[in-house]
Amino acid sequence: MILDAKRGDIGNTNNGYVEMAFDFLGVDAITVHPYLGAEALEPFLARSENGIFVLCRTSNPGAGEFQNMQVETDWAPDGSMPLYHYVATKVAKDWNKNGNCGLVVGATYPHELKTVRATVGVMPILIPGIGAQGGDLEATIKAGQDSHGQGIIINSSRGIIFASKGADFAEAARRETLKLHNAITDILGSK
Amino acid sequence: MILDAKRGDIGNTNNGYVEMAFDFLGVDAITVHPYLGAEALEPFLARSENGIFVLCRTSNPGAGEFQNMQVETDWAPDGSMPLYHYVATKVAKDWNKNGNCGLVVGATYPHELKTVRATVGVMPILIPGIGAQGGDLEATIKAGQDSHGQGIIINSSRGIIFASKGADFAEAARRETLKLHNAITDILGSK
Repeated sequence: MILDAKRGDIGNTNNGYVEMAFDFLGVDAITVHPYLGAEALEPFLARSENGIFVLCRTSNPGAGEFQNMQVETDWAPDGSMPLYHYVATKVAKDWNKNGNCGLVVGATYPHELKTVRATVGVMPILIPGIGAQGGDLEATIKAGQDSHGQGIIINSSRGIIFASKGADFAEAARRETLKLHNAITDILGSK
Repeated sequence: MILDAKRGDIGNTNNGYVEMAFDFLGVDAITVHPYLGAEALEPFLARSENGIFVLCRTSNPGAGEFQNMQVETDWAPDGSMPLYHYVATKVAKDWNKNGNCGLVVGATYPHELKTVRATVGVMPILIPGIGAQGGDLEATIKAGQDSHGQGIIINSSRGIIFASKGADFAEAARRETLKLHNAITDILGSK
């Protein structure tokens, strides 16, 4: 179970979030904001048995306001790359010592998803934005899968939990889940 | 009351956080992550009667990992400025249409605090990092106050709530609060 709580505080407070998420709620993984850096996120990163998905390129329409800013870095051949790409590079190069890091990249940005995948190898990518947010499933899978055709976790929230507001909400949610599952399987099978 | 919850999700989820913070808990203000941009934070920014403090330069030792990255922008005379400075500029120029924005800048970085103050005029700055985190009070006030000698909200959490672990914790907290209050008043009076 992945807790998409988008946490990110100073280390002392993150200790509490780690306890809340992994010990009290017992989830397997959590999403976190990168803005405070690895030093603040160390309580999360140190939990080697849990997954830490770092927000990289979010699915919302205005995600580029900061995430697309060109940052100066020697890691780019021409001296700069977008912030989201720098975050992906940093997490893959420096933060993943315990092999428990992943990234969040929205299905609404298949081009950026492809860039991130090319940067991070087989690191897992959590992909929101399918369903209510309008991301294209086939483009997402093609851009996001790793060299083994794996490594993506596709999330649909509102498309499933709000499939019906009537008494049949449970059946409707099941139907939408199976529909998405089958669509993913079809696309993976048709490579 | 300021809820230092460091929230920041897509707009639909932020609607829920807005309701939680301002309607259910009834706080006056909240802290938010900038990474998803103004479009995602609109539910917060639209609450003109509440304060929205955007994380700019956080107080933790590793804050610079992303916040110090030079981002390319025409707003800088030489074509680039650190990300924290760009966030401050962006919030002051574009996000503050309702006059309800503030910034978070750690007392542990008086130089950056001075830069932010020079950029944002009289915008309120919430300043953690005094007390347990070791920020210098006098340097903080000098760097952070606006042209009227105001505009700073200095926070000490652990220095006050953990002043004593004994039965006298309430008195100890009161004593530390008064000590900090008097120290601030003294520095403001000695200008």
